[in-house]
Amino acid sequence: MIPGRIIERKRDGEEIAGVELEAFLRGYLDGSVEEYQMSAFLMAVVFRGATDAELATLLEVMIGSGAVLDLDHLPGPRVDKHSTGGVGDKVSLPLAPLVASMGVFVPMMSGRGLGHTGGTLDKLESIPGFRTDLPLDRFTAVLEEVGCAMIGQTAEIAPLDRRLYDLRSVTGTVPCIPLIAASIMSKKLAEGLNGLVLDVKVGEGAFLPEFDRAIELARTMVRLGRAAGVTTTARLTAMDRPLGRAIGNALEVEESIDCLRGGGPVDLRTLVLELAAEMCVAGGSESSMDRARSAAARALDDGRAMEVMERMVAAQGGDVEWLRDPSRRDVAPERREVTAPRSGIVARVSPLALGHATIALGGGRRRLGEAIDPRVGFELAVSPGDEVRAGDPIGVVHAADESSARAGARALESAVVVADERAPVLDLFLDRVAG
Amino acid sequence: MIPGRIIERKRDGEEIAGVELEAFLRGYLDGSVEEYQMSAFLMAVVFRGATDAELATLLEVMIGSGAVLDLDHLPGPRVDKHSTGGVGDKVSLPLAPLVASMGVFVPMMSGRGLGHTGGTLDKLESIPGFRTDLPLDRFTAVLEEVGCAMIGQTAEIAPLDRRLYDLRSVTGTVPCIPLIAASIMSKKLAEGLNGLVLDVKVGEGAFLPEFDRAIELARTMVRLGRAAGVTTTARLTAMDRPLGRAIGNALEVEESIDCLRGGGPVDLRTLVLELAAEMCVAGGSESSMDRARSAAARALDDGRAMEVMERMVAAQGGDVEWLRDPSRRDVAPERREVTAPRSGIVARVSPLALGHATIALGGGRRRLGEAIDPRVGFELAVSPGDEVRAGDPIGVVHAADESSARAGARALESAVVVADERAPVLDLFLDRVAG
Repeated sequence: MIPGRIIERKRDGEEIAGVELEAFLRGYLDGSVEEYQMSAFLMAVVFRGATDAELATLLEVMIGSGAVLDLDHLPGPRVDKHSTGGVGDKVSLPLAPLVASMGVFVPMMSGRGLGHTGGTLDKLESIPGFRTDLPLDRFTAVLEEVGCAMIGQTAEIAPLDRRLYDLRSVTGTVPCIPLIAASIMSKKLAEGLNGLVLDVKVGEGAFLPEFDRAIELARTMVRLGRAAGVTTTARLTAMDRPLGRAIGNALEVEESIDCLRGGGPVDLRTLVLELAAEMCVAGGSESSMDRARSAAARALDDGRAMEVMERMVAAQGGDVEWLRDPSRRDVAPERREVTAPRSGIVARVSPLALGHATIALGGGRRRLGEAIDPRVGFELAVSPGDEVRAGDPIGVVHAADESSARAGARALESAVVVADERAPVLDLFLDRVAG
Repeated sequence: MIPGRIIERKRDGEEIAGVELEAFLRGYLDGSVEEYQMSAFLMAVVFRGATDAELATLLEVMIGSGAVLDLDHLPGPRVDKHSTGGVGDKVSLPLAPLVASMGVFVPMMSGRGLGHTGGTLDKLESIPGFRTDLPLDRFTAVLEEVGCAMIGQTAEIAPLDRRLYDLRSVTGTVPCIPLIAASIMSKKLAEGLNGLVLDVKVGEGAFLPEFDRAIELARTMVRLGRAAGVTTTARLTAMDRPLGRAIGNALEVEESIDCLRGGGPVDLRTLVLELAAEMCVAGGSESSMDRARSAAARALDDGRAMEVMERMVAAQGGDVEWLRDPSRRDVAPERREVTAPRSGIVARVSPLALGHATIALGGGRRRLGEAIDPRVGFELAVSPGDEVRAGDPIGVVHAADESSARAGARALESAVVVADERAPVLDLFLDRVAG
């Protein structure tokens, strides 16, 4: 295997045979293929794409580069969910305990927020004491005991993916659907799953805003999952507006607790129920989506899901009293209500603008490793389609100080567009891709 | 300037503004842009190409990264020639002294053979004592004294080109016309020229065999040369068969001496006269191609060109007696005549096969730095279109030992195709690109 020849053939659009691609990737792991050769190869993949056979090889070497969980001893199916991320997307927090309460094990490894979207890990860390860095054996023990566990991607899982991701982020090779698909799937398939449900966001606030690209990603991931023997289903869902009403880490945990208690915004509850149903069906613990949806609604409404949440938080070192008692929660010192400048209909609530504004408030990162303020963010009072009168509240900014509160208020004012007429919005559920 | 952003924009087909591209390239020189970022950028250029403005910036930074000769004090024009290389292409050896004998200074920096083509430096080094590694001040002194000087590309000239070339050779980013053009031109334009003549080969034995690609390269180089204020002309010439009859370093020097004495194969003499005429016209020392051709023919025939050759060889440490006296030249121990297997017409003499066979004989390199045997190679007895009878000689193999002589004989037999009918061959002169 001559690295330069592999690069040349990918450049020229040839398919690289499995044994050669494997040698190239293993060469990268052992240092005989240089970073500058891998980056050139990745750029060629950006232009030429990758065949399913190439992706399967890439995925296999990624997964095999690290630890793979063996969870066969668990007395039930293991199913996880992945979201491509959005603004206000706190679905994982109510979803994992909900699905666990229904007899499906949920071994969830999540990421941090980067770009304009939030990350599940940051949200979880708003809960005092909650540890997202459990070692794998402790993760497995919590999973076994509680039914779900939520941690960050550890260095032990798919280290090749991590190296490639870091390289891609500085070499202009991020927006490549086959590489994105392999990266996501390598982490999920190392979790020893039976089923996987993918929530691929579409719209302004999504990582891939256009429907065509989003569905291409969904299809690629579903093919990869199925080829690896994991029942994989993707849903394409709306991210042309924030999900729910809360944006910002602690505010989103608060809304997740509302949802786990049977309340919270309708769009959040609807999406959580739908994905829970998909997970139960994928895991085989429910036979129809309709039944699964009803069962999930009952588990939210009768407190079982919240009970699992409390047990998971306790098992991962978090403060359960903080969860139960809103008065124990730290609130941002500056809160500022923003009102509608005119009467009309809310035509648009920009997730991208609010995502960036949350970062500006200190609730997200500009660079990896930056500290964040969990208290800050936005509570929206309106959604697209709502009628408002001039002076009605459209939302509240939570900020660390007065000057950022002012800036946040301006951002909220311009993110919410009030017009004379209703504007088209995406349906919450846009498409479904299954095997 | 964020390197990743520059790569992304090139990937997306945007033009990179001069000031940004310059910062990116200078960042590579100072280490703030990593090798893996440059290789990804170069791969994006392979797919997206480069605009004339981008190429002009690349060229400027390449030239400015090293020494630039200032030859304004010379009492005549400075003109060089570059060939994209071929098999049997020894043109530089007679051409430089010939043009110098006509009052034009020729400061020639050449390369070594790599791939199936030979290199001028390797040929010159067949002359005992001849030094191709003169420092720039000595090079200038020889040029001033003799009218021409021939050395290798020194580390002082366009070091950015050398770094990029080395990186490209291991990252699948070599066959990219804009990058090839900039690489060639950066070295030539650092020579402080008034005029430049490019010999772009076309056909099986050429670096870019297809006419369309070759003329694209020619046009790109001519635009770059003109933009840099150097009168630049390109000729597209045939490389569907070897040039002349000799292939192999010392054998080609021998043939070059024949040419400098007014003899040698007609195709070699014709090409040398044509390129000499172009150089004199580009330098302004002759006003018409016709006159220049006649003047060049006279300079070959009356010994003036050979006299300059002898003075250059002497000035660069070479053995002039070796040049003058064929009996002093070391010949390969094994010579084997190959004959035509049947009667007919020579339909094809494959330059690619003979180029590779010369390397196999030890006359070229498989890897940089390998030692070569100057004595080995082929002397052809036939050209495409010649009639032969079974048993007539078609050429002689010069080899270091019997087993390689046998292998060389087999290679020559299959490189020369005798058929019933004449096959089409390229005209020696295919096209001309001027400002």
